[in-house]
Amino acid sequence: MLPLRLATRHSLFRSRRWVQSIPSFPHLNTVTEQDLAHFSKILPPTSILSTLPPRATPTDDLATYNVDWMGKYHGQANTVLRPRTTQQVSEIIKYCASQRIGIVPQGGNTGLVGGSISLQKEVVLNLGAMNNVRSFDPVSGILVADAGCILESLSNYIAPYNHVMPIDLGAKGSCQIGGNISTNAGGLRLLRYGSLHGTVLGLEVVLPDGTILDQLSTLRKDNTGYDLKQLFIGGEGTLGVVTGVSILTPPAPQASNNIFLALPHFKNILPLFQVVKRQLGEIMSAFEYIDRTAYDMALEHGLGPILDVDEVGDAQCFVLVETSGGNQDHDLEKLNNLLEHLMSADEPLIYTGTLSQSPSQFASIWALREGLTECVQKEGKPYKYDVSVPLANFQSVVDAVRERMISKGLYGDDGISKVMGYGHIGDGNLHLNVIAKHGYRPELEAALEPFIYELVASHKGSVSAEHGIGAMKAHALHYSKSDVSIEWMRKIKQVFDPLNIMNPGKVLP
Amino acid sequence: MLPLRLATRHSLFRSRRWVQSIPSFPHLNTVTEQDLAHFSKILPPTSILSTLPPRATPTDDLATYNVDWMGKYHGQANTVLRPRTTQQVSEIIKYCASQRIGIVPQGGNTGLVGGSISLQKEVVLNLGAMNNVRSFDPVSGILVADAGCILESLSNYIAPYNHVMPIDLGAKGSCQIGGNISTNAGGLRLLRYGSLHGTVLGLEVVLPDGTILDQLSTLRKDNTGYDLKQLFIGGEGTLGVVTGVSILTPPAPQASNNIFLALPHFKNILPLFQVVKRQLGEIMSAFEYIDRTAYDMALEHGLGPILDVDEVGDAQCFVLVETSGGNQDHDLEKLNNLLEHLMSADEPLIYTGTLSQSPSQFASIWALREGLTECVQKEGKPYKYDVSVPLANFQSVVDAVRERMISKGLYGDDGISKVMGYGHIGDGNLHLNVIAKHGYRPELEAALEPFIYELVASHKGSVSAEHGIGAMKAHALHYSKSDVSIEWMRKIKQVFDPLNIMNPGKVLP
Repeated sequence: MLPLRLATRHSLFRSRRWVQSIPSFPHLNTVTEQDLAHFSKILPPTSILSTLPPRATPTDDLATYNVDWMGKYHGQANTVLRPRTTQQVSEIIKYCASQRIGIVPQGGNTGLVGGSISLQKEVVLNLGAMNNVRSFDPVSGILVADAGCILESLSNYIAPYNHVMPIDLGAKGSCQIGGNISTNAGGLRLLRYGSLHGTVLGLEVVLPDGTILDQLSTLRKDNTGYDLKQLFIGGEGTLGVVTGVSILTPPAPQASNNIFLALPHFKNILPLFQVVKRQLGEIMSAFEYIDRTAYDMALEHGLGPILDVDEVGDAQCFVLVETSGGNQDHDLEKLNNLLEHLMSADEPLIYTGTLSQSPSQFASIWALREGLTECVQKEGKPYKYDVSVPLANFQSVVDAVRERMISKGLYGDDGISKVMGYGHIGDGNLHLNVIAKHGYRPELEAALEPFIYELVASHKGSVSAEHGIGAMKAHALHYSKSDVSIEWMRKIKQVFDPLNIMNPGKVLP
Repeated sequence: MLPLRLATRHSLFRSRRWVQSIPSFPHLNTVTEQDLAHFSKILPPTSILSTLPPRATPTDDLATYNVDWMGKYHGQANTVLRPRTTQQVSEIIKYCASQRIGIVPQGGNTGLVGGSISLQKEVVLNLGAMNNVRSFDPVSGILVADAGCILESLSNYIAPYNHVMPIDLGAKGSCQIGGNISTNAGGLRLLRYGSLHGTVLGLEVVLPDGTILDQLSTLRKDNTGYDLKQLFIGGEGTLGVVTGVSILTPPAPQASNNIFLALPHFKNILPLFQVVKRQLGEIMSAFEYIDRTAYDMALEHGLGPILDVDEVGDAQCFVLVETSGGNQDHDLEKLNNLLEHLMSADEPLIYTGTLSQSPSQFASIWALREGLTECVQKEGKPYKYDVSVPLANFQSVVDAVRERMISKGLYGDDGISKVMGYGHIGDGNLHLNVIAKHGYRPELEAALEPFIYELVASHKGSVSAEHGIGAMKAHALHYSKSDVSIEWMRKIKQVFDPLNIMNPGKVLP
């Protein structure tokens, strides 16, 4: 999970090294005073922020919208619009299309790939003021909400009805449901509830010509023609702006437990995964992986230790398993049976393991896993790769990167101090973290890229499992998608956005 | 579920009343001897069936491909091609595009809406000879298979690994996975495992110009650009031909149980659904609805009785709940607690209920629900509507149809003898069955349609929950989709199939 901090007051335009090469948009116009006058006919003054006259706002006041939470991406927008209704969104877009003004749709601005940042003074269309729940049916669990609703607010809204959102992620206090859907966010509940392609039942989208495409169905089943809404799930705002969402929320689990296991060898992880899946069945809700480097780092930073040091011995890796079930006694019995089975085997797959006995133990087991991101930040400057590779290759990918840095003479406190892997075994999603103790250096990046992308491609993996493409990885799209696929993405983009005004420079290279 | 019978030896071209108005395709050419000669360069003689010289096959031999299993749709194809490889599919389509020959992709031909039937002598491209499993990973449960694999064969293939297919339907012995995906089949496991939009991980598709679009990913997470494959899920073969499938298969449940409940009033069904969901949680795998008319019909045909007649009394409707869990003792305890809770309430939601005590009781409870389709066939000629409406409207929709027929003087043994509803409450999917005891009559159909479509539309429902559109409902698409949606479907069709050769006359009006 990602800690929640909104970067503010950064000096804008400070660093633009973050996009491989910033595209220029000669076909687009920037916002002028005349455009602002038109926006004022659509929106009240409080919904418009601009550095232009007549009500010129200081540049710093736009920082919340121009700088992402990591402080890594620095945008160029001189104007931010915060509509309250779908009709307003439609009118804004219609006007922008007529004037060839680029538009960057923006939710909570918590993305990691610069997808919600204005590259060349495109206007920022922030959805945050569209934040009403439209309806909730406690019988079916179907929630209909404005795109700008914050994920955590929606969780809180449905909690009294004993329902939970089908997605959860670290940024839940800031990220918006429209952004979650536009980026096809994964997060911590994917193993249990599946992807948004399955749980999103309908969308309301304003297309790049201002047309409102109302597919806000509240039906679980509807086989009447092409499922167009799917294109906007993970479309990263390049095909239209999601303004409304219909989503299926599952009943809240009644009991939550977790266990933490130490494994002698990585090769035990696949048989372990199978045993756990079989014995826990439908109550397994997470199966998380932490390699030894990551575990030791966590301990150095004061997390854990969850297991006895002697019993851990030379364990190569660790696993956190969470269950979410309907009956605490039943779930504990299943977990105890599992642990007993694992410990009493002739050739045990694990060295040792523990079952949380209290809510605080449950929390501290999760704290070790979730605290890794923060530990990594404290260790130095991290190169972070969010990849999908076959489960069997999790460790070999990490090892290959470490060995490459060693062979290049770049491994050590001067260069790359640590290479580690953790992530969601259950989803095949590896978070590969490469730490430069004393800061980023071009030769380090040159040794890592495209090496890592090629390595992932050699395993038929994905160079972006859940973070998306945005501005950051458009140049790397071809490592995971064939020329034919990219050509067809371009055709789809061309149909929806022939003027190329919607989030230009994102997704497609 | 649908009983499995393949209609054969029907005289072709017998009745063409089934499509509202059969479209003509002046832009397309029919297959000639010259074309056949070209197909012979791509395929061996055993893979080509044609009524044309030089090896003219009797027309009746094409009946399996020209007539659907109900014997309702009678196709016009003079040629059937049965390729074995994706490359062959690509070459066939490339040639058809060059000659403007229409193509009807066909799986098991078990659809209910004429989607796999050749309307005007388009060539039938049957995928049945592409029936190899390409790979299965028992750790992740990811299966990759040719599109022509029969659903039941795939179930059998993965059963030894303790996995099950995420879909199941009555036609499983004949239907093919490529057809399931092209029609976005729903079926009996949707409540538990979600829709194919979530469980299909990748597709290989041959596009209408012959290009092979390889998106056969075996990754659970891959956020690299637009999720193009989603368009082919439910695209009914109008955008391209699915040739390969990557799908996530869940672990097999270890225990299956069911209960059958009688409810005094329909209005109790929603609170009941909530109680059951809360108490059974993650083990609930079906929640099926049967109204009184359907239940009484089943008993007349020798199914059941599952419950004591006196205890059933004047119950208005019935519910079947199935659980699929990991531990028989745990699941039975949850079910017993549920029944006890239901029976001991001050104002019980149910009159009576029973929990199956043996595999044979489990089967006979399901037999009543699954036997309804066959009973309906025996009662007369059924008008069948597969609709989605809000759960609260299940009974009022059925009642409104019955009242309309009464008010028109069309209700009774002479006209409509029974109007009943059953279906998947959990999915909001109502199977509305209207029985004409002595056969179809135009004035009956005129009284039912568009009345029922309008009724469904007034509840913001879907005129096709799971059966699709095909040739049968293209004219009714507008009851469930806005003009804007249909216009955008047309644009998508135009991008993929500008020559309109892929399954012409289907889906779009």
